Amino acid sequence: MTHAEKLIRNMLKGDKRATARLLSIVENGLPQAQEAISLLYPHTGNAHIVGITGPSGVGKSTLVEKLVGEIRKKDQTVGIVAVDPTSPFSGGAFLGDRIRMQSLSTDQGVFIRSMASRGNPGGVARATKDAVKILDAAGMDFVIVETVGAGQSEVEVMRIAEVVVVILAPGLGDEIQALKAGQMEIGDIFVVNKSDIESADRVVVDLKSTLAMKTTKDGWRPEVVKTIATTGAGVDELMEKILEHKEYVESTGSEKTRRRRVQNEIESILREKAAEHVMRLLEETIQFNEIVEAVGALKKDPYTAVDELLLNVTAKPKKEGEA
Amino acid sequence: MTHAEKLIRNMLKGDKRATARLLSIVENGLPQAQEAISLLYPHTGNAHIVGITGPSGVGKSTLVEKLVGEIRKKDQTVGIVAVDPTSPFSGGAFLGDRIRMQSLSTDQGVFIRSMASRGNPGGVARATKDAVKILDAAGMDFVIVETVGAGQSEVEVMRIAEVVVVILAPGLGDEIQALKAGQMEIGDIFVVNKSDIESADRVVVDLKSTLAMKTTKDGWRPEVVKTIATTGAGVDELMEKILEHKEYVESTGSEKTRRRRVQNEIESILREKAAEHVMRLLEETIQFNEIVEAVGALKKDPYTAVDELLLNVTAKPKKEGEA
Repeated sequence: MTHAEKLIRNMLKGDKRATARLLSIVENGLPQAQEAISLLYPHTGNAHIVGITGPSGVGKSTLVEKLVGEIRKKDQTVGIVAVDPTSPFSGGAFLGDRIRMQSLSTDQGVFIRSMASRGNPGGVARATKDAVKILDAAGMDFVIVETVGAGQSEVEVMRIAEVVVVILAPGLGDEIQALKAGQMEIGDIFVVNKSDIESADRVVVDLKSTLAMKTTKDGWRPEVVKTIATTGAGVDELMEKILEHKEYVESTGSEKTRRRRVQNEIESILREKAAEHVMRLLEETIQFNEIVEAVGALKKDPYTAVDELLLNVTAKPKKEGEA
Repeated sequence: MTHAEKLIRNMLKGDKRATARLLSIVENGLPQAQEAISLLYPHTGNAHIVGITGPSGVGKSTLVEKLVGEIRKKDQTVGIVAVDPTSPFSGGAFLGDRIRMQSLSTDQGVFIRSMASRGNPGGVARATKDAVKILDAAGMDFVIVETVGAGQSEVEVMRIAEVVVVILAPGLGDEIQALKAGQMEIGDIFVVNKSDIESADRVVVDLKSTLAMKTTKDGWRPEVVKTIATTGAGVDELMEKILEHKEYVESTGSEKTRRRRVQNEIESILREKAAEHVMRLLEETIQFNEIVEAVGALKKDPYTAVDELLLNVTAKPKKEGEA
């Protein structure tokens, strides 16, 4: 039995330390990561994956904390993966926040994990997706994945969520602009937090007019919810909307949605691995030296050189009936 | 004659508008971009490419401005490509800065271009490298490429520079820490700007002790220069060091260095194109549906599925003597 097999067996028995070790393996990109995910993959698919994103300063983590409370009220378990560097889950925020979060983490039905967002951003996206799979396989009813939602790779992470909650707050004009570019498309539920601030209503109006007539790929009409995370006001409604969305997707076309997510995931892994695969193939078969020399001597430009190299990379057609 | 051919012919005659159009083509990733770079590539290789990087707030752009002045004193022409969103070159800084920069841009021996850093960061890195090639082919004696140096893709951009100048300033403790991670390795010359501030000497001492015994891949020992960009103090010394480094590399192994840069460039384009190439190959030859279904039904995990898909992608060995 390999180390990964042992850890997974223990995790499936409910051993939280085994879960934590598996999370470390994917976070650090250790060699056993792929084996571990392959082995635990058949145990995934039970958690409801909630993506939460939005700019820093909107009160995202306080809202997550309160949402966890709502989930726990229903006696459901919840795993949290945070990739927001300013999140208290990642150790980035005020001490007070962190202490509140720690109180969550003593609850046996809650598992919190932050992913370091140093280093290769692509690597963090991969590790985060795998962390969600681990918490899913560990038997969590809900897995919340929280990102600050600034870059390409964070939008990428949101693709694995079954429902995406985008959080805004009044007084962040520019942030909302930034949001409009990438995140408007991916939100199923929009939260205007700090809704006790006067200008919140204008954000709600703006948001509703931007969202008017829009439907998601599933045909769902994005909802807007007002919350005050610090008091918990509106968080019950947010929870309701999350469950409504879940029901909607399940009743209308969860198979299609699921297929789309699976296909995204395969394509994203394929893109990551294709470059390495091709580099290895070419290194085995081709004298790079000649090409480097030709480009170095300005006899050939690097784009043409690469196109010529790739002509040597082909796919053999698969036989009918092969899986 | 294609549009790209015409533009290049005009650029080579000294038409600055043609240069500007070519820059727009690569910046916007238009279809002609690759053709244009292929065509102008034989005209590159004459400019000395200076990479300038460092955190925001260190006075990078003022220093660039003064360095341009030094280059112009020697009657040499200079192109500037800025990818720093806070740089006045990119329209991000104070109005005063921008006006000063504009005074540079009325100088016929200077060509300034900022690259929008919105959108895909990988795309900006590619466009920036191509912009440098264009300004090189346009006959500039020097091309300065300025980045804020925060991410992977900016370190990537610095790889095309023949000399990398890393700029620091006192009072940015954390930034220096951040710098140590990625940028310490790539610097040939380190500048401590704002050296009239008292704590500057400590930064110089820290820097020198970190750099002690270090040599770059070319065997060059990184130099530390103190400047006050606002008054121009020390900028002549910086210019001298840049020329010293140039002489050093040319006298010791410019061929090796050049090969390494060419190889980096080919590999980086290869990585970018490999994923698209493989996706296309697989779409042509394989029924994705089956695989998506197997993964969706949890019969197969996505990593194993991708490994199996990639087994179908092979390279045909190149014949001896083929270029």
